[in-house]
Amino acid sequence: MALKVVVIGGGSSYTPEIIEGIIKRQHQFPVNEIALVDIEEGKEKLRIVSELAKRMIRHAGVPIELSHTIDRAEALQGADFVTVQIRVGGLKARALDEKIPLSHGLIGQETNGAGGMFKAFRTIPVMLDIARDIQKICPEAWLINFTNPAGIVTEALLKHGPHQKVVGVCNIPYNMKNSIAEIFGVDVNRVMIEFAGLNHFVFGKRVWIDGIDRTEETIEHLLNDHLGYSPSNIAALPWNRQFLRSLRMLPSPYHQYYYQHEDALAKDIEAYNNNGTRAETVMEVERQLFEKYKDAEIHEKPKELEGRGGAYYSESACSLMNSLYHHSMDIQTVNTLNKGSIPDLPDDAVIEVNSVITKSGPIPLTVGKLPAAICGPICLMKKFEQLVIEAAVTGDYNTTYSAMITNPLVSSDHKAQKVLDEMLEAHKRYLPQFFEEVCEHETK
Amino acid sequence: MALKVVVIGGGSSYTPEIIEGIIKRQHQFPVNEIALVDIEEGKEKLRIVSELAKRMIRHAGVPIELSHTIDRAEALQGADFVTVQIRVGGLKARALDEKIPLSHGLIGQETNGAGGMFKAFRTIPVMLDIARDIQKICPEAWLINFTNPAGIVTEALLKHGPHQKVVGVCNIPYNMKNSIAEIFGVDVNRVMIEFAGLNHFVFGKRVWIDGIDRTEETIEHLLNDHLGYSPSNIAALPWNRQFLRSLRMLPSPYHQYYYQHEDALAKDIEAYNNNGTRAETVMEVERQLFEKYKDAEIHEKPKELEGRGGAYYSESACSLMNSLYHHSMDIQTVNTLNKGSIPDLPDDAVIEVNSVITKSGPIPLTVGKLPAAICGPICLMKKFEQLVIEAAVTGDYNTTYSAMITNPLVSSDHKAQKVLDEMLEAHKRYLPQFFEEVCEHETK
Amino acid sequence: MALKVVVIGGGSSYTPEIIEGIIKRQHQFPVNEIALVDIEEGKEKLRIVSELAKRMIRHAGVPIELSHTIDRAEALQGADFVTVQIRVGGLKARALDEKIPLSHGLIGQETNGAGGMFKAFRTIPVMLDIARDIQKICPEAWLINFTNPAGIVTEALLKHGPHQKVVGVCNIPYNMKNSIAEIFGVDVNRVMIEFAGLNHFVFGKRVWIDGIDRTEETIEHLLNDHLGYSPSNIAALPWNRQFLRSLRMLPSPYHQYYYQHEDALAKDIEAYNNNGTRAETVMEVERQLFEKYKDAEIHEKPKELEGRGGAYYSESACSLMNSLYHHSMDIQTVNTLNKGSIPDLPDDAVIEVNSVITKSGPIPLTVGKLPAAICGPICLMKKFEQLVIEAAVTGDYNTTYSAMITNPLVSSDHKAQKVLDEMLEAHKRYLPQFFEEVCEHETK
Amino acid sequence: MALKVVVIGGGSSYTPEIIEGIIKRQHQFPVNEIALVDIEEGKEKLRIVSELAKRMIRHAGVPIELSHTIDRAEALQGADFVTVQIRVGGLKARALDEKIPLSHGLIGQETNGAGGMFKAFRTIPVMLDIARDIQKICPEAWLINFTNPAGIVTEALLKHGPHQKVVGVCNIPYNMKNSIAEIFGVDVNRVMIEFAGLNHFVFGKRVWIDGIDRTEETIEHLLNDHLGYSPSNIAALPWNRQFLRSLRMLPSPYHQYYYQHEDALAKDIEAYNNNGTRAETVMEVERQLFEKYKDAEIHEKPKELEGRGGAYYSESACSLMNSLYHHSMDIQTVNTLNKGSIPDLPDDAVIEVNSVITKSGPIPLTVGKLPAAICGPICLMKKFEQLVIEAAVTGDYNTTYSAMITNPLVSSDHKAQKVLDEMLEAHKRYLPQFFEEVCEHETK
Repeated sequence: MALKVVVIGGGSSYTPEIIEGIIKRQHQFPVNEIALVDIEEGKEKLRIVSELAKRMIRHAGVPIELSHTIDRAEALQGADFVTVQIRVGGLKARALDEKIPLSHGLIGQETNGAGGMFKAFRTIPVMLDIARDIQKICPEAWLINFTNPAGIVTEALLKHGPHQKVVGVCNIPYNMKNSIAEIFGVDVNRVMIEFAGLNHFVFGKRVWIDGIDRTEETIEHLLNDHLGYSPSNIAALPWNRQFLRSLRMLPSPYHQYYYQHEDALAKDIEAYNNNGTRAETVMEVERQLFEKYKDAEIHEKPKELEGRGGAYYSESACSLMNSLYHHSMDIQTVNTLNKGSIPDLPDDAVIEVNSVITKSGPIPLTVGKLPAAICGPICLMKKFEQLVIEAAVTGDYNTTYSAMITNPLVSSDHKAQKVLDEMLEAHKRYLPQFFEEVCEHETK
Repeated sequence: MALKVVVIGGGSSYTPEIIEGIIKRQHQFPVNEIALVDIEEGKEKLRIVSELAKRMIRHAGVPIELSHTIDRAEALQGADFVTVQIRVGGLKARALDEKIPLSHGLIGQETNGAGGMFKAFRTIPVMLDIARDIQKICPEAWLINFTNPAGIVTEALLKHGPHQKVVGVCNIPYNMKNSIAEIFGVDVNRVMIEFAGLNHFVFGKRVWIDGIDRTEETIEHLLNDHLGYSPSNIAALPWNRQFLRSLRMLPSPYHQYYYQHEDALAKDIEAYNNNGTRAETVMEVERQLFEKYKDAEIHEKPKELEGRGGAYYSESACSLMNSLYHHSMDIQTVNTLNKGSIPDLPDDAVIEVNSVITKSGPIPLTVGKLPAAICGPICLMKKFEQLVIEAAVTGDYNTTYSAMITNPLVSSDHKAQKVLDEMLEAHKRYLPQFFEEVCEHETK
Repeated sequence: MALKVVVIGGGSSYTPEIIEGIIKRQHQFPVNEIALVDIEEGKEKLRIVSELAKRMIRHAGVPIELSHTIDRAEALQGADFVTVQIRVGGLKARALDEKIPLSHGLIGQETNGAGGMFKAFRTIPVMLDIARDIQKICPEAWLINFTNPAGIVTEALLKHGPHQKVVGVCNIPYNMKNSIAEIFGVDVNRVMIEFAGLNHFVFGKRVWIDGIDRTEETIEHLLNDHLGYSPSNIAALPWNRQFLRSLRMLPSPYHQYYYQHEDALAKDIEAYNNNGTRAETVMEVERQLFEKYKDAEIHEKPKELEGRGGAYYSESACSLMNSLYHHSMDIQTVNTLNKGSIPDLPDDAVIEVNSVITKSGPIPLTVGKLPAAICGPICLMKKFEQLVIEAAVTGDYNTTYSAMITNPLVSSDHKAQKVLDEMLEAHKRYLPQFFEEVCEHETK
Repeated sequence: MALKVVVIGGGSSYTPEIIEGIIKRQHQFPVNEIALVDIEEGKEKLRIVSELAKRMIRHAGVPIELSHTIDRAEALQGADFVTVQIRVGGLKARALDEKIPLSHGLIGQETNGAGGMFKAFRTIPVMLDIARDIQKICPEAWLINFTNPAGIVTEALLKHGPHQKVVGVCNIPYNMKNSIAEIFGVDVNRVMIEFAGLNHFVFGKRVWIDGIDRTEETIEHLLNDHLGYSPSNIAALPWNRQFLRSLRMLPSPYHQYYYQHEDALAKDIEAYNNNGTRAETVMEVERQLFEKYKDAEIHEKPKELEGRGGAYYSESACSLMNSLYHHSMDIQTVNTLNKGSIPDLPDDAVIEVNSVITKSGPIPLTVGKLPAAICGPICLMKKFEQLVIEAAVTGDYNTTYSAMITNPLVSSDHKAQKVLDEMLEAHKRYLPQFFEEVCEHETK
């Protein structure tokens, strides 16, 4: 058996990590064909990444054929797995997602608040297109989504797309496990965390090492030495001790935007004034990375990539594909349908949850009723997400405003409208669902 | 049949309104005995109100005997209805509820945010005492609670008290109906609003005049002429047009704290800097009212009382008692157990809901699933309320902090702790559940 | 304001009751036009009923114009209310519903078991046609359904029909209230029963007289004197004392088929052997009634009609129309959407429930969680009903079999298939959804 | 690390299977101590089994010390696992469970209908005693229950017992997997079935071989060749083809009592008339088995045991203990708390469900909403089970009758009472909760 993996958004700087992951698993996960796909504007980057990938493959001496193209339909022929890591509008659009809210005194972040909402608006229509192609061309293929906001995008695909073999992945759960492994000085495979919540709004409800509940000890560790624990790319503020003491669970790094709203905002505004948006920083990082990638002497994933933020994303994706292929029945944390795992949330909501990975897809483990302290915020966030999905699919202005005002990071009816209107205008060309004329124009 | 009404918190400036309500209904609601009860510290006010009440009764020529006492148990003998309007710690405590949060840049309000939470903490233990007395002395009596936060207090009584004949009332629903009546120029009895939500967090989901749905027209009216519509004592900010357009429901005046957080906070801080707390203003109003009350020439409820804020509270209470007594089967908006009326909320949660008033108590009408735009916030608020109740009953610090941080008006883990600690200290003598020594002292 | 009522199934022997109900309410419910509609085969009966109805109107001296027609669309012009009482296939079909199951040793009854299921299959397609007409011709009209199985038919209309102004009525709740009134010797208006359940599977959960809970006393009455209490047309078996003692609720007469399965079956088989089916008995009753109706001397509803079984059906319908028209806000027991009233059942299930009747339709009162003793059976029956509706709409054989085997009155996988096949064949011409060729033929 | 296993009901004829299972796993599951416990009346059988077990251990050459005692508390000292396989009242009581219902024309079966209910009544008080001992003496030990009715007993332990480390096992799921393996000619480890339902009322919702969904093929196999498929000790009737065609799931063998009620009853009555009760047959089988057991030449589990019915029960238990000990994270089918796995059932209900076995206990996989065709019956059965548990704990007669009449195998209010009274009388000495005097007597 030989497998074909299609990487949509193949020109991304993250691609070498996937290539590395596939190479590393070659003995058990027999990929013999990889197709990198990107769009017209990404052609040059696609070419550079493609060259690097070929050097990596050659260097590893594995029998994988790698191609690149901007013809998505062609690439999808015969695919077994399709990974998707796209950024509609590129880093320029991200800069706007960050800048506009901040300029009104609101959190401006890629996957949270108004910024995350617009990233979803730009991404969902494209993802649905991809899903339609997959359903037509390679209906047996798994779509592995790691495009952010990963939970929202995955739910949109499952609710509104024709293709149901979809799993969303994120690196945060893996990072959290890694942090715990470091704290206890054990191998990460001995750590299990019971996750409860949504992508970028997930809590570590219980921590086990070798199957023994060590949650209380973990909290004590955090209280004593690791208040600044943050297993992620986002610069973390230290947690208030009492916050951890009451919670008795692991917050995710993104929770600082909600529970440390004021401080996070102040810090972001300061950072913006000093260095511009995070998007702009990333642009520079990317520029340097691509310089490296061009270097014909390099035939391994450059170390610098690890500083890029999404570390382990591709690792998670490769590991998932491997288990889906082998019906490994191991437990991985993915974004998939709730199906009762958290009874407080709708059965058809996508949650981030430990799941048994079978050949027929992930089966979530039950989490049970959410603890009182986190149930309200998680239910609220899911309602927000569902409004975002509805707005993304319908382009309805009123629903969009409702989504905006439901988000806890947007606490002013007036500002909500201003930011909304400004962002709609700024992202106009990527939002066909909101601007019919544009839409017609685009599809011509 | 002759009835006895006991008014706990009888020394309140609102009492003349209840007296008036009972006098007005004398032909159908045959009260022949009223007992006003208060505590030692309120003795003088109790005496003054009692004298006024007696003059009112005499003037109306109705056969009601009125007594006053600080012996609650004695007063409860033979009671058919017990209304409770108490303020544990008095207006001084309210001033602290407003001042402390504001001094940290948080909303300081009597029934919302940190202030409302501490009002609940002070009130619930006393209310449970009253419920125990009623259950022992007059177990058939209805307890009509209009002590704020009315929804939280009513749920605490139903969950943790021995006496289940409890109904909570608030004047906001009545005020909202009144505003609609004014807008349409019709009598308030022709207006029906389907309420959805919680006390002080209730939405008017649909508006009917004479049974015909006029919700859309109502929203248009608000958009055109009544952006500042506020049927309440709290000074309202005008709503953002788009907010109303998306919502297509009636917000309650208290929603400004949530959806206009920043502006409301700014306004409150300004008001505080100019005039001190609302509590201090009210103290002055009360002082003047009691001057009036002392005037032996006055034998009717003074007009000035209407400016006091809680207008219609007593009206609602009298109307409710009348329907409970007569098994009127009319529809009133009360705080009572959900029982499935709003499937998104627990069956045993107290909600503010249109109910058929029978002799055996209110039966809520079904509201059905909450609209997406309000479901998240209402579920969040109910979770907050349930944490408050648990904290109020157990005095557990961690639960208290969790309640605090769950409240959308408290968006900082550090501030939450500071405000919490400061308020616990400030209200120490009214919080036996949090301070065991005090508790022991009190019960000696 | 003048109103038009359309009576579909106008040739029914029950129609004089509706006419009488409308005449009686003339001073408050100002109907000035009645159209009786029936199908070609019912023309002669329609004419007879129509003549009697005209004599009744003339005799009462009320200004109502009455017409009759087999052109449904014409009759619906300008309708305010449309009552539907049809019997697709007539009493001959009913005889088969009773005979076929009985011949296999299964309960054969008009609205329960296999018989009720096939009545639903014949009725639902016709009802959906009627609903489509109403939606097109008189979209503001209320459809008042009292065609059995009333709950199933109403749910099918609300789920699959275009017209949502639909209410189902049944006489059982009214009859149960009447029986209680007799037991206590009070006027029926002083009795309120909290109903819990489904049409023909409803329990009286609590009994109030003048708003005071008298449930326990009612059970004692039944235990002492009224074991054979049966407020209905179906001949009742006496209840087992212990059954009532454990239940502590009022069973409905149809519950004998479930809780006294064996005895009911034995009795029905004996009755069938002696007198043939109930349908055949009814045919004779009808024949005699129509003899009466033809008598030009008669200008009132003949007393004999009361023995017919469906007594109070029309009374319930008239009372409901009156309250819908006047926005009376009184409480009537109707078949309408659950909306959370019984949290154990889906929100979109139709239940039989006390509801406030407004101009915008009935609003169900909350019932709350079902008592443990009846929750299982009610949930089972609702699942059965939903399978019946799905089968009725799709004509899918597997779903039909699943419905059959889910019904507690059908406890054999082999018999289920035999009875099913025999009944499909027997009713073929009324089941277009199951027989495509027939369907095409019919619509030509 | 060395482990101690306590076998309560150690004198059972099944015990050699457990001993064999432990011996087989010696290299990975390091048991070095086994204590067999039984009651006074079982002393002789306990001695015989104990001797056989010792011979088996010696023969295998494994370092396990085996003791036997009737002092339960002593045996529990230091236990890591406690398996429980008891039969309160012995096979004589079982004979009554079968005989009495049959004599009234009702299904008489060990774990279903009236018989299963009384088995629960006799067993639950003793199990709660055992749980109290474990909690006191070896609180870290896992209680592995395979006493029938296993689901009901496990739920009773989790709801009313002090010890929460409880898992229930049954051999039916394993047997069903085995049958499927045979049908497909593959090793049983390659088969996975998604189970949905309750112990002895479980359906195989989906069948995977090597992770690929083969459900449809399985049904076709059953339809073509295996209508009599029955992976169990109970003699199976062939299924109706249409039943399987509609269901498209695997029924469990016990479903014949429900879906083939009449035929199963007829067959059981015939069998009873020919051979007496199943209990009596088993008594003879047991007698012969114990003859074997006494034979000092035998030092392996006798083959004859496999014909005994509960084959694989002990296998399932050993496999479970091994995974709990090793934190294997493999998937086994156990009886444990629902926690949302099947959203149609309460979170705190015990279900039979695929679960990941961790050191901290089983975590159920989500099953999701039940298919329409089985949802009603499963919900009904759970309601029945919950009434049985309540009756077993309280001894309340009305609740007992409600449980009885809720069971679909008991369809007559009169018979229900007769059978109930007769069985209460027959089992009196084992039902202290129903007969206070007896209770007092017993505890002296």
